[in-house]
Amino acid sequence: MIIDSDILGYVAATLTTTAFLPQAILTIRTRDTDGLSLSMYSTFTLGVLCWLIYGICLANNVIIFANAITLFLAILILSFKIYNTFFKSKNDEN
Amino acid sequence: MIIDSDILGYVAATLTTTAFLPQAILTIRTRDTDGLSLSMYSTFTLGVLCWLIYGICLANNVIIFANAITLFLAILILSFKIYNTFFKSKNDEN
Repeated sequence: MIIDSDILGYVAATLTTTAFLPQAILTIRTRDTDGLSLSMYSTFTLGVLCWLIYGICLANNVIIFANAITLFLAILILSFKIYNTFFKSKNDEN
Repeated sequence: MIIDSDILGYVAATLTTTAFLPQAILTIRTRDTDGLSLSMYSTFTLGVLCWLIYGICLANNVIIFANAITLFLAILILSFKIYNTFFKSKNDEN
């Protein structure tokens, strides 16, 4: 079976990024981050950053493309979470 | 700067899988999937499967390792979601 691995990679990247989008759009629109864990989201964002650097090291455009988009969204959401946790209400700590 | 890209990849894989674990463990323990979207989770699981096949095509152990673990957990959670949606309560459709 002949599979163009780059096409498969872009399909994979599109699917996992698409699955992440509704959560990202909801959080960006409402700026409600109560349902998100700061430690989990920090770990995820750091992980995606490492994947992006890994993609750059390998000069793999699929990994770079997938993780650049996800990192952008993850940093936005993490910023809202950090703002809501530490600056908006100091009594409401997660 | 010298970075062993394989080590960086495994760090990335460990971080993103670790971030996914609490949600996975919670769902597997409680079997409560009300907060999860069937379409989103199906898209995610299919995406992770494509990443795994992509990793196999590239013979990239980091991508295979990361996505094999995530796929296992995602299929478990998706199975609970499908069971809860279509078999447990036919009146409670998402």
